[in-house]
Amino acid sequence: MARWQPNASQRLVVAALELFEERGYENTTVIEIAERAGLTKSTFFRHFPDKREVLFGGGTMTGLLVDGITAAPAEAGALEAVAHALDVIGREAFPPERREFAARRQAVIAAHPELREREALKGLGLTASMIEALERRGVPELTARVVAELCGIAWKIAYERWSDPANHDEFGELARRTLAEVQAVAESQSRP
Amino acid sequence: MARWQPNASQRLVVAALELFEERGYENTTVIEIAERAGLTKSTFFRHFPDKREVLFGGGTMTGLLVDGITAAPAEAGALEAVAHALDVIGREAFPPERREFAARRQAVIAAHPELREREALKGLGLTASMIEALERRGVPELTARVVAELCGIAWKIAYERWSDPANHDEFGELARRTLAEVQAVAESQSRP
Repeated sequence: MARWQPNASQRLVVAALELFEERGYENTTVIEIAERAGLTKSTFFRHFPDKREVLFGGGTMTGLLVDGITAAPAEAGALEAVAHALDVIGREAFPPERREFAARRQAVIAAHPELREREALKGLGLTASMIEALERRGVPELTARVVAELCGIAWKIAYERWSDPANHDEFGELARRTLAEVQAVAESQSRP
Repeated sequence: MARWQPNASQRLVVAALELFEERGYENTTVIEIAERAGLTKSTFFRHFPDKREVLFGGGTMTGLLVDGITAAPAEAGALEAVAHALDVIGREAFPPERREFAARRQAVIAAHPELREREALKGLGLTASMIEALERRGVPELTARVVAELCGIAWKIAYERWSDPANHDEFGELARRTLAEVQAVAESQSRP
């Protein structure tokens, strides 16, 4: 019946963000999101399991991150491998023209506890995927856990900095610089 | 009407754990938990907001952690301050006689996605509280974030080790040793 719609996923995301901004997350239904995007409810559910998921892009980010870690040069250390993945994410998911959208998305998430919770759980899922991808490169488990958490901190800070309209950095470079800052702080702590 | 019940909270936790083990989390109601504990449903809701919360002890752990960081000697560095808090938690929340309960609790959480999700969100809340408590000691924001994440990793690993019936360590010492291990790994990474 319903045929495949080009860019349906992206149209749904933009429609959802607009509606959440206009009337709030709670007062927006999946049907309204689909209508705004010129699509049907069933198309929505082919792309997203529920309303909460629409701003979190399914598994795209996980895929980019895991592929980026896997594709890093064989001789790269664990932090270099995740920096390589952050470069890939910058190119594929956070090009300069997405900066304004990112800022609006962040504001909507910050205003809704349910979305903040979903974002937090997504972050934990990404960390778990990074750990697995690092272990497949032969990184020992504890190192993989530590490096994935340091990368998580750097990613979060870099994304905050990058989604500021006043920022003009390329995401991958900014994230790599932030990761080096985070690592410098970790190095400088005295052991308990 | 209902009078205060000594140890009501602890009785509810033990009753809930038994029922979750016997018939699963989904097949247990709040009324059944209260009945098993010899208490009423309204007593349950005075102690816990919902069924998911009963194994997560409200804000006790956050309170111990924040107090432990605050009470650490003024000259202690950030990692030493969190190690001090882990000592406090070992004494107050994880005495040796709780080890068997901890192992059963972990098994029940591992078996239920809803409980794993709640545990993950609790962990994020604890990290946020640690960051705030460190900042109140004058620790710079980025250092506080890094140290809180390293402590989170150490805590999780130490708790896994400690709740193993074959383990005989005291929690605080084990956590401090694990934190030193985690820090050694962080130090040894080359910057990207």
